Amino acid sequence: MDSILSKRSVYAENSILEEEREVEKLEKSGKKIIEINRGDPPVYFPTPKYIIDAYIKALRASETGYTRAEGVFPLIDAIIKRYRSKYKLSLKENDITVTAGVSEALNFINTILIDQGESAIIFRPYYNQYVTQLKLSGGVPIFEDYDEKNNWDLNPESIKKTLASLKSRNRLAHTKYMLITNPNNPTGTVLSRGVLKEVVDLANEYSIFLISDEIYDEIYFNKAKFTSLCELAKGIPHMILNGASKDFDATGFRIGYSIVPENDKISSEIKSKMADMAKVRLCVNTPAQYALAEGLSNLTEHKKAIAYMVKEIEKRVNSATDILEENEFLQTVRPNGAFYILPRVDFKSLRIKNDYEFVDRLLKEEGIFVTRGSGFGAESHIRIVSLPPKNILDYAMDKINYFCKKYAK
Amino acid sequence: MDSILSKRSVYAENSILEEEREVEKLEKSGKKIIEINRGDPPVYFPTPKYIIDAYIKALRASETGYTRAEGVFPLIDAIIKRYRSKYKLSLKENDITVTAGVSEALNFINTILIDQGESAIIFRPYYNQYVTQLKLSGGVPIFEDYDEKNNWDLNPESIKKTLASLKSRNRLAHTKYMLITNPNNPTGTVLSRGVLKEVVDLANEYSIFLISDEIYDEIYFNKAKFTSLCELAKGIPHMILNGASKDFDATGFRIGYSIVPENDKISSEIKSKMADMAKVRLCVNTPAQYALAEGLSNLTEHKKAIAYMVKEIEKRVNSATDILEENEFLQTVRPNGAFYILPRVDFKSLRIKNDYEFVDRLLKEEGIFVTRGSGFGAESHIRIVSLPPKNILDYAMDKINYFCKKYAK
Repeated sequence: MDSILSKRSVYAENSILEEEREVEKLEKSGKKIIEINRGDPPVYFPTPKYIIDAYIKALRASETGYTRAEGVFPLIDAIIKRYRSKYKLSLKENDITVTAGVSEALNFINTILIDQGESAIIFRPYYNQYVTQLKLSGGVPIFEDYDEKNNWDLNPESIKKTLASLKSRNRLAHTKYMLITNPNNPTGTVLSRGVLKEVVDLANEYSIFLISDEIYDEIYFNKAKFTSLCELAKGIPHMILNGASKDFDATGFRIGYSIVPENDKISSEIKSKMADMAKVRLCVNTPAQYALAEGLSNLTEHKKAIAYMVKEIEKRVNSATDILEENEFLQTVRPNGAFYILPRVDFKSLRIKNDYEFVDRLLKEEGIFVTRGSGFGAESHIRIVSLPPKNILDYAMDKINYFCKKYAK
Repeated sequence: MDSILSKRSVYAENSILEEEREVEKLEKSGKKIIEINRGDPPVYFPTPKYIIDAYIKALRASETGYTRAEGVFPLIDAIIKRYRSKYKLSLKENDITVTAGVSEALNFINTILIDQGESAIIFRPYYNQYVTQLKLSGGVPIFEDYDEKNNWDLNPESIKKTLASLKSRNRLAHTKYMLITNPNNPTGTVLSRGVLKEVVDLANEYSIFLISDEIYDEIYFNKAKFTSLCELAKGIPHMILNGASKDFDATGFRIGYSIVPENDKISSEIKSKMADMAKVRLCVNTPAQYALAEGLSNLTEHKKAIAYMVKEIEKRVNSATDILEENEFLQTVRPNGAFYILPRVDFKSLRIKNDYEFVDRLLKEEGIFVTRGSGFGAESHIRIVSLPPKNILDYAMDKINYFCKKYAK
């Protein structure tokens, strides 16, 4: 026997973390590393006090046993209210399943939709876990590219071609969903409403289930306007993913949720199975559910917190982008959402062969830890997390520019 | 297209929770229900204050971002110390992966070991999630029966036969692990050391990876002696599952962990892949990890809390068993661990056809919510959670006896 491992286990990886051992080693040797690899707001913006207070209150009230598997009612009700006031959506309790982050929702989705050899359409560059979870489920991604030349927006023409081709090859029934991220990780793009509408119409025309990961749905700036999928997909089977991590600045809570607003056969099947999957693992962290319920409900405190965070992120992203634009070896689409920058690296002009080498050398030589673009299906790019304070982030960008010059051909 | 769902999604279910809607309905109509379906200690024994205090301390220290995917070092170190002092085991940091309860560990195990059509040996009666997770991974359970006539202990002769048969049919390489639970859910049995040793020897002889779920490893009584698999399996590839839920009375934390103590090829592959799986979903709830670290480290407080809880559970289990023994329609093996009772029901003598009907009628007519045995692979049984205070639990047992008499043929 060669190996006890399953064949699919080869896909268990996370490009964002793959140099962490190296970072630990460097830090132990006394080197200072600027980690801009992981999108972790609480490191730079402490989770708002009113949320922490609610968390503590739940602990003091002995909320430490199992809960309703799909999520405690105060949280479910708070999610319903959020979507009513924000997007004029009328949700029912059983439309919502609370999960251990969007991560667990992705695991559920792939388990309930994907059998060995089936597919899903994933837009590239993608958040790496989409592909990892799909492949771990025996699925095969079909990639569609966001259009870098058009601000990394969706490309309806190309999507139409892909869907038509799948249909003509009788593969559409085995292509279970199409997954977009808006605002986007890793591109930092807010999808435009018009183009999103075209894609919704295509999903409807070809009867493909549409999923939108909107975990950054309050983090947009530079005058961008965000449109939730749920605003455009009335009457069409779809799912929204969201959670505590980014808007509520609480990645470590591990609380996400899925919403399936419609009641057609497909939507009903999916929401009922999401609930079944939730029951299998009993529940998610109990007091954190109450904390997010308060996070969502106390609008006054939340508005203050998110306004400050977005204003700061806008400043940091723009300043970092300004500096990167001075770099002749990089081409950067200016982000208007989330907190990522994804510059394209002109490897032909550098004595560095690819993004792996770029990330590794940048870490070891300059102490700057970014993520290789190939982890997101963007081989010629690197991903930068623009969360550190402006002076530190600017310094890191200067280092990147210096590093590129050092390796100029 | 009939259904968008994957074929394997049919296995997403949890027998322990399947009547919960009915319970909600009954409670809304003003009926009082005694819920002895779910093994949730914090409902009856509030999570110890020193653990809650540590949790709050972590929150106040803004420990709300992502952590090291495999678990924060204070928790890893506390687990290492626990196993050193309790079982004289010398663990290294990378032997341990912290998971969202044993539930997530099971998901990881099946993902990294099981490809479509492969198998694992599961002992029956089983904790229902073992089979659910295996089947959701495309796996096929091979059942071995615990011996009800011998205090629900393991049956090495039968196991040997099964392993020999698998070997002769060349199925052994595709039978990836053998999973025991000790102390057992749902039988309440503490496996005897001698028999466990025989099974370890068989696992070694047939080179099958052995997993022991020891989430109840400090909850045993009636003079039982508990032996951890790690005490007997030195030099043999194996894994221990454990966590905060039961010994530390904190089910709602959703913190479990897996330990792979050995360093042979199989063990190394498995522990490295468990870490990779952890990285895929980034981390588990952050402050709860620090809370469990303190739970494990403060031995004085822990000893007090667990001693009280075990003494109470012993009293409650024994009293409930005494009452059930008066029931001529039930046959009950007296438990000596965990907090479950699994009486066998003599359906031939009752006007109730099976465990489904028994559970449903008992709930609706007497307001007592137990779990059907078939959910655990024990069709002629029902499972009772013996956690409520003695007077309430005794009352529920009286109700069960009354209910059986009512339906006597």
